[in-house]
Amino acid sequence: MEPELLDIAKGFKSLQESISSGLEAYDGKASFLSDLWTRPEGGGGDTRVLTHGRIIEKGGVNFSHVSGPLPERIAQRLALPAGMHFDATGTSLVIHPLHPFVPVIHMNVRYFEIENGTWWFGGGIDLTPAYISKEDAIFFHSSLKAACEAFGETLYPTFKAHCDAYFYLPHRQETRGIGGLFFDFLKPGDLFKSKAEIWDFVQTIGNTFLPVYLELIRRNESKEYSEAHKQFQLWRRGRYVEFNLLYDKGTAFGLDTGGRTESILMSLPPLTAWQYNYVPEAGSPEAETLSLLRPVDWI
Amino acid sequence: MEPELLDIAKGFKSLQESISSGLEAYDGKASFLSDLWTRPEGGGGDTRVLTHGRIIEKGGVNFSHVSGPLPERIAQRLALPAGMHFDATGTSLVIHPLHPFVPVIHMNVRYFEIENGTWWFGGGIDLTPAYISKEDAIFFHSSLKAACEAFGETLYPTFKAHCDAYFYLPHRQETRGIGGLFFDFLKPGDLFKSKAEIWDFVQTIGNTFLPVYLELIRRNESKEYSEAHKQFQLWRRGRYVEFNLLYDKGTAFGLDTGGRTESILMSLPPLTAWQYNYVPEAGSPEAETLSLLRPVDWI
Repeated sequence: MEPELLDIAKGFKSLQESISSGLEAYDGKASFLSDLWTRPEGGGGDTRVLTHGRIIEKGGVNFSHVSGPLPERIAQRLALPAGMHFDATGTSLVIHPLHPFVPVIHMNVRYFEIENGTWWFGGGIDLTPAYISKEDAIFFHSSLKAACEAFGETLYPTFKAHCDAYFYLPHRQETRGIGGLFFDFLKPGDLFKSKAEIWDFVQTIGNTFLPVYLELIRRNESKEYSEAHKQFQLWRRGRYVEFNLLYDKGTAFGLDTGGRTESILMSLPPLTAWQYNYVPEAGSPEAETLSLLRPVDWI
Repeated sequence: MEPELLDIAKGFKSLQESISSGLEAYDGKASFLSDLWTRPEGGGGDTRVLTHGRIIEKGGVNFSHVSGPLPERIAQRLALPAGMHFDATGTSLVIHPLHPFVPVIHMNVRYFEIENGTWWFGGGIDLTPAYISKEDAIFFHSSLKAACEAFGETLYPTFKAHCDAYFYLPHRQETRGIGGLFFDFLKPGDLFKSKAEIWDFVQTIGNTFLPVYLELIRRNESKEYSEAHKQFQLWRRGRYVEFNLLYDKGTAFGLDTGGRTESILMSLPPLTAWQYNYVPEAGSPEAETLSLLRPVDWI
């Protein structure tokens, strides 16, 4: 049976629920605070933010379902007349951990529908370690590949390549992190047979997040670290800010179309440092990480 | 006598010299380190950065004189054929002080010339206090007004209004700071009689910086402050980053046209914090500052 808009929105809400309670339970120290907001033109959301946790320094797990007349900028981009009714719903998250060896993670799954019958799914998941661990990168990419493979062999390489191309900082000639998956405008076609199959895929990606990220935390949370490691983490966070404010289409689009600023910029790290012309020592772990900020076939 | 390109470049270089030595002498703890760089297509610059000073946590005072064939993006914007020879020279600075009551300052003076005979001056100076002091704002704007008035009465109100409009964050509905002056495409016309007069004005603005900023430091550097004041400063710096990466035309343009990334992003603060949905207590000094982040007639 084809999933309906409200089933999909309900699925995204329950994904937010399971992810935020799973993260909160593992963190054990701080709780997500929920901000319910409404949008004057229709719909609203639930922005949940946890700060000063044991593991999570700042993390947000957001749900939204907005609707109303298509804003002019979106209509232009889709070559549709402005003012048609649309619905957009999704769950998105960004976790900035306290520990410099626990990676930053981002995930986002979303659905868009217009009254003329057009619809699509989009989303992605990607990892931004301050220090890149090859073992963790292989584990992360293998987990995503396994999640994709139930739906066909071409999905992982296709969406992995999109992710590498998207999370790229041209002015630094660096990727943001070690990539993952990125997909948009998913409709039945070469990759998927039906709407039901795409929705199944999107939920599979959503459900992959929690076990994979908890495993990445477990692998790293007890490692000892120095003030120098912490400084490198703050410096790497600067690149995260640069990407999100200079290049991220979702951020620019959300701010341009009058989205809720605090929900959109929830993605920015808690504490960040810019150091003029920092160049790590040759052969250091920091230099190794920088050398890996390019598309890599991890598997 | 009309100033020539090389006189102007020499003037900007000597402005960099006097400003960096004046700041260094007052700071007394750290020195500017100079990075000389060249641009493959022609010209280069001298990026001078001072960090971990007594007063200056991170500050840059840059000179550049670049030349070569007009990059395509600039040509498009000016409706000129790409490839014509151009020269651009200027001095720009951003100072991020350590003390939360000493304001951030930015200044930039520049000259652009194309082989077809087109030329203009641009620039500006503006102040971004973490905490707005009304007395300091009046002093700053009065100093700028006095510098402008030797050249006519309309300059200050015109360039002050441009500055308020330019340094504005629409997604926050806030100005970046308390403004100052902003001007571009200055040519002989309603405001100035000759190239010599404009060059005189631009130099006057450049020379206004040092005494005015040293006075602002002197007024505030000995005030006691708490950890809460420092936190607010880090939070206000987040807005500075948001403006520079989301809206500043010079930053976007520099990065897009392959400028030297570290010289362009030298403007970003040393340590910055984003706190989800921070709202200062009603009636607090923090709330008062936020209420003043709009165009204000300070004089």
